[in-house]
Amino acid sequence: MSTTTAGNPDNEGAAAGPASLSVGPVTRAAAEAAPDLADATPGDRARLLAAVADALDAAVDELVPLADEETALGEARLRGEVSRTTGQLRMFADVVTEGSYLEVTIDHARSDSTPPRPDLRRMLHPLGPVGVFAASNFPFAFSVAGGDTASALAAGCPVVVKAHPGHPRLSRLTARIVTAALTDVGAPTGTFGLVEGYETGRDLVLDPHITAVGFTGSAAGGRALSDLAASRPDPIPFYGELGSINPVVITEAAAQRRGGQIAAGLVGSFTLGVGQFCTKPGVVFLPEGTGLEDAIRAATPATGGRMLTTRISTGFADGLRALLATGNVDVVAGAAEQDGADRATSPVVLATDVEAVLAQPDVLLDECFGPTTLLVRYRDAAELAQGLHALPGSLTATVHAEDDEVAELGPIIARLRDTAGRLVFNGWPTGVAVTWSMQHGGTSPATTSSLHTSVGATAIRRFLRPVTYQDSPAALLPEALRDENPWGLLRRINGRLTIPRDPADE
Amino acid sequence: MSTTTAGNPDNEGAAAGPASLSVGPVTRAAAEAAPDLADATPGDRARLLAAVADALDAAVDELVPLADEETALGEARLRGEVSRTTGQLRMFADVVTEGSYLEVTIDHARSDSTPPRPDLRRMLHPLGPVGVFAASNFPFAFSVAGGDTASALAAGCPVVVKAHPGHPRLSRLTARIVTAALTDVGAPTGTFGLVEGYETGRDLVLDPHITAVGFTGSAAGGRALSDLAASRPDPIPFYGELGSINPVVITEAAAQRRGGQIAAGLVGSFTLGVGQFCTKPGVVFLPEGTGLEDAIRAATPATGGRMLTTRISTGFADGLRALLATGNVDVVAGAAEQDGADRATSPVVLATDVEAVLAQPDVLLDECFGPTTLLVRYRDAAELAQGLHALPGSLTATVHAEDDEVAELGPIIARLRDTAGRLVFNGWPTGVAVTWSMQHGGTSPATTSSLHTSVGATAIRRFLRPVTYQDSPAALLPEALRDENPWGLLRRINGRLTIPRDPADE
Repeated sequence: MSTTTAGNPDNEGAAAGPASLSVGPVTRAAAEAAPDLADATPGDRARLLAAVADALDAAVDELVPLADEETALGEARLRGEVSRTTGQLRMFADVVTEGSYLEVTIDHARSDSTPPRPDLRRMLHPLGPVGVFAASNFPFAFSVAGGDTASALAAGCPVVVKAHPGHPRLSRLTARIVTAALTDVGAPTGTFGLVEGYETGRDLVLDPHITAVGFTGSAAGGRALSDLAASRPDPIPFYGELGSINPVVITEAAAQRRGGQIAAGLVGSFTLGVGQFCTKPGVVFLPEGTGLEDAIRAATPATGGRMLTTRISTGFADGLRALLATGNVDVVAGAAEQDGADRATSPVVLATDVEAVLAQPDVLLDECFGPTTLLVRYRDAAELAQGLHALPGSLTATVHAEDDEVAELGPIIARLRDTAGRLVFNGWPTGVAVTWSMQHGGTSPATTSSLHTSVGATAIRRFLRPVTYQDSPAALLPEALRDENPWGLLRRINGRLTIPRDPADE
Repeated sequence: MSTTTAGNPDNEGAAAGPASLSVGPVTRAAAEAAPDLADATPGDRARLLAAVADALDAAVDELVPLADEETALGEARLRGEVSRTTGQLRMFADVVTEGSYLEVTIDHARSDSTPPRPDLRRMLHPLGPVGVFAASNFPFAFSVAGGDTASALAAGCPVVVKAHPGHPRLSRLTARIVTAALTDVGAPTGTFGLVEGYETGRDLVLDPHITAVGFTGSAAGGRALSDLAASRPDPIPFYGELGSINPVVITEAAAQRRGGQIAAGLVGSFTLGVGQFCTKPGVVFLPEGTGLEDAIRAATPATGGRMLTTRISTGFADGLRALLATGNVDVVAGAAEQDGADRATSPVVLATDVEAVLAQPDVLLDECFGPTTLLVRYRDAAELAQGLHALPGSLTATVHAEDDEVAELGPIIARLRDTAGRLVFNGWPTGVAVTWSMQHGGTSPATTSSLHTSVGATAIRRFLRPVTYQDSPAALLPEALRDENPWGLLRRINGRLTIPRDPADE
């Protein structure tokens, strides 16, 4: 076994029975794997990631029906999500091969400095075993073999996943596939492990072998675990991607000139995946009296879908109830009184105004996870500015405006930039491309660490720390730091970046 | 006034009276300065840093005598430290001008992707006002205008310094000089502020305008403030550089072949600045029976110097007492029983063995701040490995070995790499060069954030967060992200790094 799903490692019934409720054996195995995984060459680590991707792709016909059974997200969406997940693993293989993520920096010795400067060589090394909390809403892309797992493995860190209880059988099947692929490619024993259970999750965060945690989930759960990570004798980084209201601002000109298009786009975005995206547009600032509300009402479908779990659907119903209880919310479309029974929901559009938002920001600007959005009517630019000032941190912020308004948008963009990690122009936030430039993070309370991202190439940086070698004998230097640059890395030498010659340029 | 030292902003007696005990007005001014400072061009920001450096250099004859009066560190050392401090400010001006710290990354839109990929452009933006806790032991380089201040200003973040009570008058004078320089160069009002007082420091960490904290000081104080930062409704990053024992390993061959040189180097390093360096070698693993102990005894001077404060000198005496109280420590050189009265101390060399260290690691491997080091005798490689396994995290780790031993050092280096941020070969850790490659940080408990450094060019990364612009109109993009690349930045475009042509190459 190259990996660990303690409790039932080789059991035929493993796909049905739970993984370990005890983290100790799993994290110990991860700690034992850590040195070998850290020392693996870029090629070995890229092969490991590609092997996991290939194995998941090969099992798509087994994975997707099981995922649909547990999550009700539908086959088309789930097939797309498997592709996204395996594409992500392969992107991190590219990141590892390209190698500049290592931030190799070399300063040669200088005897003419005061005091004389030694030879200094700096690079990033993996932290060690990483705990990953799987999310419910993306059973592939943010779950067992999702972005946190892919970026941690790419960094050279063993991974212990705490499965989400919303899709336990899929989690176990995915773990088995990952395990087998890692074994086949010769990854160190303990490179990957799966655990289950609420208390097990708390144990994972406190486990002395765990050096960092990636988490995607609710604000309350994330905050509790983040506090736990900070309470350790040796506090560890906790990368929590929590709830987000993802504000949208629509200017008067945009509402007037393309209200129908905006209405259709908004409805498509807030109902996508039954409203279960962390980037769902949850609050929309729109100008009074443009007819945009009518267009949104007309575009909103009457019927919805099944949510991921009963807990989530009843939570959605409770959220709607809390909004209505303010007494300052109109129902624009849909049935606002729902009970969430049998995971059923339907889309709801609510509306309020800036004055009400300023009076009760904690309720009206709180995330309501599910297919709903809150329109906030504003009278003029001054009132819009007041409303934006009340916004909490979000993953994204979106602006719909016309080209001839660009000159007036500066203060709005500046304000939104202070709260969000991604600014979307004339589009919708629910698509999150997995690229070099993606930023999936924002400011508190949307994330616990605004300095990093959980999606995109730079997500790898979360699991690395710098080490500098001073006057090291060449034979004791990691290969990345040797003069001959055997891995052909981009390096900063004596302050100047040097890109190795690309054979394609010859 | 471009800056704030609330309480006595324009008062003639400002150099004598304390700065504000109330952080509110100072952090509010910092928050007001933040947008303008964030939007300043690289040239403006570089000029600001250079202006502060020039002003401090011009005032060196006023600064150094005051510093010596308060810290007793001596004129030569303090003049050198002013140079280091102003050199550091100028290095960050270079970092800002060079610009690759912005991590500009551009992915062009691709309509052929599934789903179609939008135009995505990512860069780092300043977090906002930063709180800086000055250290006692470097009254310039880690104090009011030290590394945390320089790197935060370089990032585009206003700074509020909490002065160290060990050198209050120097802190106020430095703040006045920084203030005047920033005013002259047209920096936004509120760019820099100074506060004083223990409770004020706690208020600073909890202040809603403060977005990150840099701290250099004791483990206990740092942990308390770190916990406070984590307890906020919006937890903020706390970059604490705390105590460190900085282990040294000496091989038998090194001890035999150059024992005298090693002894002289060790004594020079652990007594430097009266042992008040965070990189002081605090524990030295040395082979039994090589005579190295005798050489160290012979090299240790009988007389010492004055420490920074009475609190520190009595703390040193207490630390020695705790080590002796284990009953497992021999006095190799110096007087181990001291009282720390009138800040007076003298160098002390103690010795123990691996068995004792394993029995009481919490006492024997705890930092004793001051001119002492603990020799740990080992019998063979196996015992050395056991001793190294007990090490807590440190800023540095040092190895003295001979060239023909390189093949056997792998496991030792691997172990030390897991605990420290900088590995020193055949040298001493107390020199910390301010360069692109420096890493001043390690693992817990030496630092609260092992992912970053407090010294060297990359210290700027602590105060920046990524923001991605999706399909932004060109006119709304920050200049760094525009196609025409007006600042001539290194950028990653569609996954490939592109260095702008250097005119020097033409």
